[in-house]
Amino acid sequence: MPDPIEFFFDFSSPYGYLAANRIERIGQKHDCDVFWKPFLLGAVFKINGQSPLIEQTLKWSYSRYDIERTARRYKVEWALPEFFPVATQAAGRAFYWINEKDPDLAKKFALLVYQKYFIEGLDIRSKNIVAELAAECRLDFDECILSINSNLYKEKLKLVNKEAIKRNVCGSPFIFVGDEPFWGHDRLNMVDEWLQTGGW
Amino acid sequence: MPDPIEFFFDFSSPYGYLAANRIERIGQKHDCDVFWKPFLLGAVFKINGQSPLIEQTLKWSYSRYDIERTARRYKVEWALPEFFPVATQAAGRAFYWINEKDPDLAKKFALLVYQKYFIEGLDIRSKNIVAELAAECRLDFDECILSINSNLYKEKLKLVNKEAIKRNVCGSPFIFVGDEPFWGHDRLNMVDEWLQTGGW
Repeated sequence: MPDPIEFFFDFSSPYGYLAANRIERIGQKHDCDVFWKPFLLGAVFKINGQSPLIEQTLKWSYSRYDIERTARRYKVEWALPEFFPVATQAAGRAFYWINEKDPDLAKKFALLVYQKYFIEGLDIRSKNIVAELAAECRLDFDECILSINSNLYKEKLKLVNKEAIKRNVCGSPFIFVGDEPFWGHDRLNMVDEWLQTGGW
Repeated sequence: MPDPIEFFFDFSSPYGYLAANRIERIGQKHDCDVFWKPFLLGAVFKINGQSPLIEQTLKWSYSRYDIERTARRYKVEWALPEFFPVATQAAGRAFYWINEKDPDLAKKFALLVYQKYFIEGLDIRSKNIVAELAAECRLDFDECILSINSNLYKEKLKLVNKEAIKRNVCGSPFIFVGDEPFWGHDRLNMVDEWLQTGGW
């Protein structure tokens, strides 16, 4: 069996969104399992002393342009949300709740959250909005709200953040093939090449 | 005539070094002029409130690994210098002095500086070392020292820094194809694709 792919992402990360649209195809091509792992980029930035992209003047100016260009290149719809970046605890906890039932459904939910945020600009900070998106995936609204508020999924998300920090996950998206780390949407081609060649 | 390529880089930037080994081949492939433009990354970081890579714990840990892996992939020799990062005023000013005489020789000099720094670990902060490398390119040692100390080339380098900031150059390497901006060694494939397809 080939090494699995672990796909770390923050629900508020534009490049995470772009990667979420491509990662499963790469997994399928190489017959790899893909494990989706939403985490909180803020927890990593704190360790790194980094500020959000939008606060880094020159970098944001470039990135805003580059995200649009990259979305065009890969034919992914994209619009900068009015609220950006946002805290993504609600979506992350809901994801792990769904993931325990059905990992494929959790991926479908994650893509829906990304699309609603990065195409329609929905405020995904809101627990209600997140639970409505879960309901669109035929999950129970009230149960989703309970899960978002539960210590169980608070702790689950914190654990993934800790894991991310421990494994030097320094941005979103961040991909592992086995132990091999790849940071950024622009490394997906390298991930593909790594899987194709077995590494170098 | 196709748009020219402008190649902004800092002499202390590992990814700039990796790109310097590949950029001319991309230019040749598409019949583009390539203009090399060393600048001071520190001047950009000041505007962005960014700290050097090496001070960002998780990011540096990843990048150090990634630079080695990328160097292996492209068969470029690489070793982390003892002094890193370093101020690159001397090399930058010497570059622009040579560039006025002979842009191809200036590129050869720039590659030599990069190699001596990133393979042999030479302290390229030193004016003497930089002038010795110019002398290896059959330029006059004393004249090089005079140029490094001159207001003319101090100002020239400052002008390029200002241009870099004005054009949102937010890291090294940073490449323009006409006005189209590309940040990072890992975007060279996109530069290639952009030139191949005429953009999207």
